[in-house]
Amino acid sequence: MSQIATVRSPSNIAFIKYWGAKDLKKAIPVNPSISMTLDACYSRCSVEHLQDDSSEHEIFWRQGEGGFEEAPPAFAVRVRHHLDTLRQITGCGGRFRVATENSFPAAAGMASSASGFSALTLATLGALGIEMPVDQQSALARLSGSGSASRSVLGGYVEWPRSGPGQGGAEHYAFQLADAEAWPLANIIALVQTGPKDTSSLDGHRRARTSPYWRTRQRRLPSRLAAVRKAIEQRDFALLGPVVEAEAIDLHCVAMTSHPPVFYWQPATLTVLEAVRRLRADGVAAWSTMDAGANVHVICEPQDADAVAQCLQGLEGVERVMRDGVGGGPVREEEHLL
Amino acid sequence: MSQIATVRSPSNIAFIKYWGAKDLKKAIPVNPSISMTLDACYSRCSVEHLQDDSSEHEIFWRQGEGGFEEAPPAFAVRVRHHLDTLRQITGCGGRFRVATENSFPAAAGMASSASGFSALTLATLGALGIEMPVDQQSALARLSGSGSASRSVLGGYVEWPRSGPGQGGAEHYAFQLADAEAWPLANIIALVQTGPKDTSSLDGHRRARTSPYWRTRQRRLPSRLAAVRKAIEQRDFALLGPVVEAEAIDLHCVAMTSHPPVFYWQPATLTVLEAVRRLRADGVAAWSTMDAGANVHVICEPQDADAVAQCLQGLEGVERVMRDGVGGGPVREEEHLL
Repeated sequence: MSQIATVRSPSNIAFIKYWGAKDLKKAIPVNPSISMTLDACYSRCSVEHLQDDSSEHEIFWRQGEGGFEEAPPAFAVRVRHHLDTLRQITGCGGRFRVATENSFPAAAGMASSASGFSALTLATLGALGIEMPVDQQSALARLSGSGSASRSVLGGYVEWPRSGPGQGGAEHYAFQLADAEAWPLANIIALVQTGPKDTSSLDGHRRARTSPYWRTRQRRLPSRLAAVRKAIEQRDFALLGPVVEAEAIDLHCVAMTSHPPVFYWQPATLTVLEAVRRLRADGVAAWSTMDAGANVHVICEPQDADAVAQCLQGLEGVERVMRDGVGGGPVREEEHLL
Repeated sequence: MSQIATVRSPSNIAFIKYWGAKDLKKAIPVNPSISMTLDACYSRCSVEHLQDDSSEHEIFWRQGEGGFEEAPPAFAVRVRHHLDTLRQITGCGGRFRVATENSFPAAAGMASSASGFSALTLATLGALGIEMPVDQQSALARLSGSGSASRSVLGGYVEWPRSGPGQGGAEHYAFQLADAEAWPLANIIALVQTGPKDTSSLDGHRRARTSPYWRTRQRRLPSRLAAVRKAIEQRDFALLGPVVEAEAIDLHCVAMTSHPPVFYWQPATLTVLEAVRRLRADGVAAWSTMDAGANVHVICEPQDADAVAQCLQGLEGVERVMRDGVGGGPVREEEHLL
């Protein structure tokens, strides 16, 4: 007898970045991060729980237009490891078959591991018929090693970790600052790199502390976090925008000054940054941010989304423009991928 | 009766950057800088000293293929101001006619003001028949407001300021660390922006201290300066290269995190940086540096110059590749531009 569940979980874009870990394997971050959960950028994942003679998990994925195929080792090993962790924590026994796909390019700094491991965690719990509060789901997703997955189990605007004492292991989870309806911000994404990036986020995290600017950024974060929390609470886009863009530039300056340096930007990243500065000079309130990758997320209010998308569409080096915005979080689906 | 003199003065590329001034008008820097004087990138300047009824200096320049024409106000005002300073210091009276041209694009972060004001200073002294030691020439060139001009009056490898007590006003000058023959390094320049940059170096200097990373960079400089001095003394390219590239990235990180931020890089700047990293991965010892502009100077040893030039030639966004190298410093010329 087998049980199957399918979950669609969104990616998220960080306003304040997770960069540098106290414990990289368990994804215990040095600093709190805040993100907006997305809507159109998501992973869909089906998990089937099997009790049979084999003990090997089977991992399939689909990229682009083709059918499902066995996932490549580098990806499969992370999935297997997380399935083992979940099996151990839930004490469920058996093994899993997994099929997963993304609505957007993976491994290009688009937080595909956030949506992917959030979906994997929730679908696995679904296949096992285990219900638990969202903060426990967040903590389990985090144990995948993709820290930002802990934010993707929630919709709207999300902070991770909750500050306070006793935060560390299983209690270390994200929480919602405001739901998606509270502030319907748009996110127009300029895809300038759809292939995988040269340096993984995990390697970037490892090198973060070698940057001479690492400490300086850490010292700036409390006031930045406070500004972003206040902006979300008061729906104050004029407060939010500059902080979000400066924070993204900072992240990449820390990366570029690490040893060895990490360059995530592509030439067209600069083209988009410049175009967004010009948009602002023309009176359109739009602000850029990038996760650990080359693609640029341009955050704006809904009434400016058309103008932003139009501006980004024609830029040299922009392969595709995706229109996205804040989303409500993961959903169970009835149709399975397996 | 009039006296005329013509000087060809090279530009220079800084290994350790002048960025941030104690006194911007007098170009008193916060930190010492070290540069390599170039050869093929130069300004040529003729100055004629006139004793007539007019008191207005006349400033002509030539750009590209055209003839000499009246220099535009933004440039002419800086030249006039420096001529007034020189007139006052030398007590010469009269007025000057000036004609100047560059062998490379001006105002694109190629230190055109360094070569230009060095040539202007030396040609003015020549027209006045005034001889003085090179350290005094350096201090006078510096008073133009282009601090790096103080380095361009010397050939080879140059440090400014000489560290020591009592350095401030007229005594604040550059000195030679090694001459050009001592270490014939090559500099292959990828021109990715030949039009003027958006933010002048002077504005960049003004904003430098607003970067949260400003102090951190200052703290790193003593060990960097020591490494570059040692590398030049011992002709140790393996020591020099990494420091030079990291220092350039740092400069731009400080600029990009200033308030308001200063973005000098163009998309093709990143293309070149990436190509140079690939060259190194292929075993070619070449290192990038940029002054306050988008163009990339790739420093290498002479035997690698062909490989570097060939690599840069075909890159997208690279308008032109200039082959240059360390040069011997300014020279008097017999043929005048006036």
